Amino acid sequence: MTYCVAINLNAGAVFCSDSRTNAGVDNISTYSKMRAFGIEGERQFVVLSAGNLATTQGVIAQLEKDIRTAAQVNLYSLSTLTDAADYIGSINVAVQHRHAAQGNAAMFEASFIFGGQIGDQPPEVHLVYPQGNHITTSSDTPYLQIGESKYGKPILDRILTPDSDLDTAAVCALVSMDSTMRSNLTVGPPIEVLIYRRDSLLVERRYKFSAGSEYLREISKRWDAALKDSFNAMPPITWGDGNGGKSG
Amino acid sequence: MTYCVAINLNAGAVFCSDSRTNAGVDNISTYSKMRAFGIEGERQFVVLSAGNLATTQGVIAQLEKDIRTAAQVNLYSLSTLTDAADYIGSINVAVQHRHAAQGNAAMFEASFIFGGQIGDQPPEVHLVYPQGNHITTSSDTPYLQIGESKYGKPILDRILTPDSDLDTAAVCALVSMDSTMRSNLTVGPPIEVLIYRRDSLLVERRYKFSAGSEYLREISKRWDAALKDSFNAMPPITWGDGNGGKSG
Repeated sequence: MTYCVAINLNAGAVFCSDSRTNAGVDNISTYSKMRAFGIEGERQFVVLSAGNLATTQGVIAQLEKDIRTAAQVNLYSLSTLTDAADYIGSINVAVQHRHAAQGNAAMFEASFIFGGQIGDQPPEVHLVYPQGNHITTSSDTPYLQIGESKYGKPILDRILTPDSDLDTAAVCALVSMDSTMRSNLTVGPPIEVLIYRRDSLLVERRYKFSAGSEYLREISKRWDAALKDSFNAMPPITWGDGNGGKSG
Repeated sequence: MTYCVAINLNAGAVFCSDSRTNAGVDNISTYSKMRAFGIEGERQFVVLSAGNLATTQGVIAQLEKDIRTAAQVNLYSLSTLTDAADYIGSINVAVQHRHAAQGNAAMFEASFIFGGQIGDQPPEVHLVYPQGNHITTSSDTPYLQIGESKYGKPILDRILTPDSDLDTAAVCALVSMDSTMRSNLTVGPPIEVLIYRRDSLLVERRYKFSAGSEYLREISKRWDAALKDSFNAMPPITWGDGNGGKSG
């Protein structure tokens, strides 16, 4: 599986992805699931991918080819993020259909998180489904996830608001990733983080943390210790507090 | 959906369940998913249930009827926990098959957590699958979950060992439940907790925390505050630490 999360903030956007792919437990590989596209000063995009690796590679290859051949519709010609998400959705559906007759259609499914900024339009983040449609973030839900999303959701729900700063959101994404890796073997390093500052129209900060990364280990160790300390400070279970209490 | 967790410790066993059932978002009800059976001084059992409510009620009704009518095979006649888990598994399969022709078989599926103690045998906890087979805990994995298990798994993985005491495990189950309720609307109070002390052969402590429970609110509020404090103490994201660092 995969775990990717992207966060859309007033200050910009943060993208985070793992790099483990597997086709059965005895066929595990490492592939980056983060691809950045852009023209400095004009537009910047980030694509995170989950699902069938042949599909996600096929989609990314098509996006790159369309840019290279200056196809009429490509990431550098479209005028809004929403149009670009539609375009990625239609490529996603097309790539899946190409092989659909050779197996169960669900086998070939892929999802993408697509975000970035074009000119002076506000930054946007979209989740593109296997069916080609897409949703975006809101002020109540400033993040989107693909892949193994449940383990790492509680910390995002507790911490993130649209006013969170970029560094806070990046650390939150890493803690969310750490919880996921701890409970699910199919998500693993290297972990990539890209921090996009609103209106910068360039990628200033992109990190890649390998399995041996001191920073990743420090986050993991400190978060584990902090949770254990927090847990040890919880009030002991009590009898009849008016609403709770012994029932049988 | 549902969230139930049971923990098997050297000191005994802890059971925790939510009470929300739903058949679509406009058909939400409250049903206890925890049922205790026992003969003081001889044997004690707890059953937690998840899945199709007609199936789980049908299974529990059959367990009760077999006890009441002193059927040849019933929870009070079987000599081991494993035999009793087999028996629950076979009832589970039979109840599902009764209506299988009227719909998609998966619609009628149910899972159970079944645990307790018979005489001087050690306590056991089993997870009974819709197919009737079952697994038990181990010293590496002292807990079992059914229903919406992912949100609340990370804290169990961090805290629990077979040496954990019963009260610690009960609070851990409640924190795990709190994380699940916060991220998933289909899991909700009242929350029931049953703490079984090894070799007691009776139920001394059973709690039911309603939505308005002060203790539940206190756990939720303190855990949220502790997580936020812990999060704020995380080290800021850093550049090139030897292994991590800028990659693009």
